[in-house]
Amino acid sequence: MTVLPGISDIHAAAARLSGLVVETPIIESPELNKRYGGRILFKPETLQRTGSFKIRGAYNKLSTLSEEERSRGVVAFSSGNHAQGVAASAAMFGVRAVIAMPVDAPALKVGNVRKMGAEVVPFDRFKDDRMTVVRPYIEKGMALVPPFDDPAIIAGQGTIGLELMRQAKALGVSLDAVVVPCGGGGLSSGISVAVKDASPHTQVWAVEPEHFDDTRRSLAKGERVSNEPGHSSICDALLTAEPGLITFEINRRNLAGAIAVSDKAAAQAMRDAMAHLKLVVEPGGCVALAALSSGEIYLAGKCVAVVLSGGNVDFGTYAEIMAAD
Amino acid sequence: MTVLPGISDIHAAAARLSGLVVETPIIESPELNKRYGGRILFKPETLQRTGSFKIRGAYNKLSTLSEEERSRGVVAFSSGNHAQGVAASAAMFGVRAVIAMPVDAPALKVGNVRKMGAEVVPFDRFKDDRMTVVRPYIEKGMALVPPFDDPAIIAGQGTIGLELMRQAKALGVSLDAVVVPCGGGGLSSGISVAVKDASPHTQVWAVEPEHFDDTRRSLAKGERVSNEPGHSSICDALLTAEPGLITFEINRRNLAGAIAVSDKAAAQAMRDAMAHLKLVVEPGGCVALAALSSGEIYLAGKCVAVVLSGGNVDFGTYAEIMAAD
Repeated sequence: MTVLPGISDIHAAAARLSGLVVETPIIESPELNKRYGGRILFKPETLQRTGSFKIRGAYNKLSTLSEEERSRGVVAFSSGNHAQGVAASAAMFGVRAVIAMPVDAPALKVGNVRKMGAEVVPFDRFKDDRMTVVRPYIEKGMALVPPFDDPAIIAGQGTIGLELMRQAKALGVSLDAVVVPCGGGGLSSGISVAVKDASPHTQVWAVEPEHFDDTRRSLAKGERVSNEPGHSSICDALLTAEPGLITFEINRRNLAGAIAVSDKAAAQAMRDAMAHLKLVVEPGGCVALAALSSGEIYLAGKCVAVVLSGGNVDFGTYAEIMAAD
Repeated sequence: MTVLPGISDIHAAAARLSGLVVETPIIESPELNKRYGGRILFKPETLQRTGSFKIRGAYNKLSTLSEEERSRGVVAFSSGNHAQGVAASAAMFGVRAVIAMPVDAPALKVGNVRKMGAEVVPFDRFKDDRMTVVRPYIEKGMALVPPFDDPAIIAGQGTIGLELMRQAKALGVSLDAVVVPCGGGGLSSGISVAVKDASPHTQVWAVEPEHFDDTRRSLAKGERVSNEPGHSSICDALLTAEPGLITFEINRRNLAGAIAVSDKAAAQAMRDAMAHLKLVVEPGGCVALAALSSGEIYLAGKCVAVVLSGGNVDFGTYAEIMAAD
């Protein structure tokens, strides 16, 4: 049985990451505060190294490998943001990285991974079993860096929760809720551990794309359920099949709930982030902002943190979404 | 004869602005550092209240008015960013604001000014004399808040220089140069006073749009010269006719030089800011980044700060520039 990562693991991760990752600032918009009738604190992990939060978990995972394990290199599968986090972390340690990426991953993400010196192995996300793609490398002794269902990954992402609580305190506010994008649940579970440790009354919400609301339905059922196949979404970073074992075990204890948002709502949130925050946010990175309009989170007079988890989006896609206003 | 604003005026402005404006963070990109062969520290005033630095000078100016003067309201002319800074400052003091804005100002900027409760008086920038437009309000006793050529405005913008020097020190680096967008010269002159006070060897560069390089040509001639009429540029925030009296007097003492960049270079810099910094920057706000590719500033092995002065751009314009990659 896996031991769940706790607050001490997150503190240890924060010590390892200190000075290597960006302590992303808090950004506010008077217009959005007015619209939602509360105080919304945005945590833009878009400004993080590699353009998403993923380097936090990846670097922490690589730190926990022995020097001997690490020297054999690392392997991962990812649609893009985790890939960039692993590639950057491997480059920081000077070890080899092999990343299996779906052929339909955004070109920007694939290009960035290659630029950081990692080898990209393309696979078809509808036909190929990604474990089959990475197995030969694991058999050669390379360590798998899982995208979310791993204590060191979860603890790394949880460092965002530590920063948030410290930053809220410095602003003299108490957070009523923290709203977090959710694919496999690594980000939401990690953040929930840090937030609940410091402030048990603060709600933590996970937000998923419509048709990929496996965490929402799993929470409702009390056990892990998978998404129906055959759907698509612009939120490429959040298209996981089902919650992780560890992430779900944490999330079912800590989350206030999960919310599903449409692609249309995610696109509108991207335009709001552009106009009011001047931040480039990718579709999956913007779902927590989109969820504020769902009516499911009580906002009036409250102070709510919203994690903008990534900003890696192609020019063409972004231009199309901006022009759709 | 006007007394030039000095470092004590900037410190006084910083004290007035403290807690009311955002201390904008420093953002870095490993990719851009690599491209330019130096360390580039970006100061994104795009994340400032109202989406540009202009609130710093406007609020400082309103602070220096007597309560009686302020109570009669304020009037300004501006293509948009100064207008928003004045409108927000007037709202913070609870006084009336009237803003003369060109009919071709970006719709986003006009809309934002109205949302903040200011009255907008449209004028034709090619036909109307803007002083004629605002004179009736001045005659009613309302105070004019000039866009740049005013000691209190310059001192307010100079607070960016104080922050930059403090932030560079905290990072343990010494700045070799600071590169700043330039319209009338309020931002560059204010920043230059703060930078030169703390670090006389640090170069300060002003950057202007092609055909609007009045500061560059004025520096070359040793006296203020105007731009030739009949040109246009996408950099709507920087289309001033000539340098200010006070701003030029400071700039000719403090600047290392001024650089003119094309609209094409400004657009490319906007795409670079989107892809590598995840920041939405308006055309005029991005000219200092564009100037890094001009070859006029020595970058190899140097540490250079680049001010991104604003991010107020319409969806349509922005989408078009992003799609042009």
